[in-house]
Amino acid sequence: MSQQKPSLPKGTRDFGPDQMIRRNYILETIKAVYRKFGFQPIETPGMENLSVLTGKYGDEGDQLLFKILNSGDFLSKSAVQDFEGGTKSLLPKIAEKGLRYDLTVPFARFVVMNQHTITFPFKRYQIQPVWRADRPQKGRYREFYQCDADVVGTNSLICEAEIIWMIMEVFQQLSLSGYTIKMNNRKILSGIAEVLDVTGRETDLFVAIDKLDKIGLENVMNELAEKGFSTESREQLKQILTLGGSNAEQVAALKNLLSNSELGSQGISEVEEILNLVAASGMSSEKIEQILEVDITLARGLSYYTGAIFEVKAHQVKIGSITGGGRYDNLTGMFGLPDVSGVGISFGVDRIYDVLEELNLFPTEQLNTTQLLIVNFDTALLPQALKILSRFRAAGLASEMYPEPVKMKKQFNYADKNNIPFVVIVGPEEVETQKYGLKNMRTGDQVRLSVEEIIQQLQ
Amino acid sequence: MSQQKPSLPKGTRDFGPDQMIRRNYILETIKAVYRKFGFQPIETPGMENLSVLTGKYGDEGDQLLFKILNSGDFLSKSAVQDFEGGTKSLLPKIAEKGLRYDLTVPFARFVVMNQHTITFPFKRYQIQPVWRADRPQKGRYREFYQCDADVVGTNSLICEAEIIWMIMEVFQQLSLSGYTIKMNNRKILSGIAEVLDVTGRETDLFVAIDKLDKIGLENVMNELAEKGFSTESREQLKQILTLGGSNAEQVAALKNLLSNSELGSQGISEVEEILNLVAASGMSSEKIEQILEVDITLARGLSYYTGAIFEVKAHQVKIGSITGGGRYDNLTGMFGLPDVSGVGISFGVDRIYDVLEELNLFPTEQLNTTQLLIVNFDTALLPQALKILSRFRAAGLASEMYPEPVKMKKQFNYADKNNIPFVVIVGPEEVETQKYGLKNMRTGDQVRLSVEEIIQQLQ
Repeated sequence: MSQQKPSLPKGTRDFGPDQMIRRNYILETIKAVYRKFGFQPIETPGMENLSVLTGKYGDEGDQLLFKILNSGDFLSKSAVQDFEGGTKSLLPKIAEKGLRYDLTVPFARFVVMNQHTITFPFKRYQIQPVWRADRPQKGRYREFYQCDADVVGTNSLICEAEIIWMIMEVFQQLSLSGYTIKMNNRKILSGIAEVLDVTGRETDLFVAIDKLDKIGLENVMNELAEKGFSTESREQLKQILTLGGSNAEQVAALKNLLSNSELGSQGISEVEEILNLVAASGMSSEKIEQILEVDITLARGLSYYTGAIFEVKAHQVKIGSITGGGRYDNLTGMFGLPDVSGVGISFGVDRIYDVLEELNLFPTEQLNTTQLLIVNFDTALLPQALKILSRFRAAGLASEMYPEPVKMKKQFNYADKNNIPFVVIVGPEEVETQKYGLKNMRTGDQVRLSVEEIIQQLQ
Repeated sequence: MSQQKPSLPKGTRDFGPDQMIRRNYILETIKAVYRKFGFQPIETPGMENLSVLTGKYGDEGDQLLFKILNSGDFLSKSAVQDFEGGTKSLLPKIAEKGLRYDLTVPFARFVVMNQHTITFPFKRYQIQPVWRADRPQKGRYREFYQCDADVVGTNSLICEAEIIWMIMEVFQQLSLSGYTIKMNNRKILSGIAEVLDVTGRETDLFVAIDKLDKIGLENVMNELAEKGFSTESREQLKQILTLGGSNAEQVAALKNLLSNSELGSQGISEVEEILNLVAASGMSSEKIEQILEVDITLARGLSYYTGAIFEVKAHQVKIGSITGGGRYDNLTGMFGLPDVSGVGISFGVDRIYDVLEELNLFPTEQLNTTQLLIVNFDTALLPQALKILSRFRAAGLASEMYPEPVKMKKQFNYADKNNIPFVVIVGPEEVETQKYGLKNMRTGDQVRLSVEEIIQQLQ
């Protein structure tokens, strides 16, 4: 066997117990909210056929797919000598599968392959890792979890309202209050292009608008001037981008400004209806106004959104969006099943983790896994200690016994390092009196209690 | 975009909601037991460096590793033309990473890389998929979950007893009673080889013994005769293999038969101590005798076990072992860290699924995800319905609203197909009286109740 120093592939990570418990706290919270809203779990394999993945993420995405070598001796000298024509003809011979790049395309494939057994509308959630051959850098990994929920098979804007409620519930449960849900609509963006009379140059327009937050209004205008946008269209845009006020005020002003664009007007109506539906749940308009913000500069990867667009920004932490999503009219069209509209949301687990960490929002109490450790006193008392251990476990307490009768100090250190909050001592005197030492590892307090009393206290 | 009919790679599977809910039931049960016994979660990446994986699973295992193509233009014509020497020299140029083949080697890597921060003994559990380029066949997949727990850094046999308790608790919680935990010890097997005087030919011996169940005693004897084992050694073996009786009787007889082998005697002492520890928890000896069986024919992949060996067989279903594990003295030696002993267990999720399915042991009640559906009556009543929906959810009920005001029949059908047990009707009369129709989808019963009453009934 080789004895090299082991290492991890670039851009990948191990998660030790401390991180896992915090990550699970986030993932379980999101999962519970998804379930409470009627979403059902699915999972798809990590490996997909390259024919499913290729061409779905643009040229850049294709470059970032991890491809899996076929098994067999296709790499033998003779097989390679047969090769004549460069990458294009060698690749299919040696790789037919790739690693999942996101959860959306596999979900579309799932829907198409199961279209005759699925009851639509279909609400699914999916929490699995994805892989991208990106250049690794701080906060960008080659393997990371996505955490998606989508409804497909309905155009109802109730689904958009549900997404907003789910976002609010997740962050409320995670005790994160300083955040904004930004909402826009792809049709509003198209409407703006129409009224500026720049149809066909949407990409340049949206890319520039999307930078407003970062580079400011003047630089956006300069960029558009360089790209050849007329003075008139730039002035009109300036008017639109400097609209302020409440969501209702923005909606009213946009109705007016985009009245000549049918698509734009439709986008505004949708925004208005979503705002009304959100309010219908009984939430106060102050709370809605405080959390939800119509932001017409939000563009968010223009590739497949066709209606609502969502993005969540944390206030106190410098980090990209922590959640995003939107409506797409034709998810499954890529696999030959047209007219399946859907809307989805994806929580960014790694970034939410960083935000909670930086704001110190992880609840210390809930993050213990094991509640108590029984000290291994000596071999003679082992049977008594094991009997008590089994009573603790029967009562549902996560508990363990130190496996060896080593020095107490070492055993207490083990409890300390593993964040085990209580230690129980089963020594000769304790066994005789049936009152066992219970030590609180945080306060250092120690009391003598019966097994029942310990169970009552810790349950 | 391509419009091909999408497909799944051979040997991989999608899990739809029904399967996911059943799989999660199994996985959550196992996870909860692992946690109750003080095990902590870790996760490692799906991709590992090939230098970590290669040479750890034997030649056959190396063949079954899925390798991942490096990114870059190494497949360009010129790069391939540079290649001169066949597979051996091309492979590292094109693939440096592979997919995880099991959870044990990545765990060993994790322990070695984190040896200075881990507090030993280290109890970890890990539930993640693994990939093997096996020929797919019924019940054998190229991507499947493993579900492992291991303790490393102690020789204490308490850990072996804990594994037995965990197995018992998992299957009790899954309501599976017809199973046997078979236990053996690698040192007993070595002791048998010693007393038969066939040291150096252990593999032939153990492979033959391991088949006893399937081919019967005479065929095992014939196989050993063919392999050149002497009449005397075969007669001695026959005597050992035909030992019957209780665990205690077997232990007593083996003590005698293997008294000339130090290693064999040590193996028997270990078995005896494990049996004593298991009994110390207060479990009745009848129950132990019924579930736990010392079986000296159990060999179970001889590669790395050095002490106890475990295997669980279900009684009423024809299927391989549903759980297995054992002790290995030198897990991390492959990465240059010697003397880290460990013992572990792995539950076979796919097989346990099949057993529960075949014996009809999945609890129907617990497998609902969504508890109630509010019928979408019409757009006018939508605000009232949404307000009620938010009250159900605030009370913790997993609930949803049908997104479109389509025919009632279609909405009831949706509830039926999604196993939603209750439907709530919010029509004009209901809104006026504030008593809403609650229909039990199983019995067909319908009653009129207030929101509070519905919540009380379903919570």
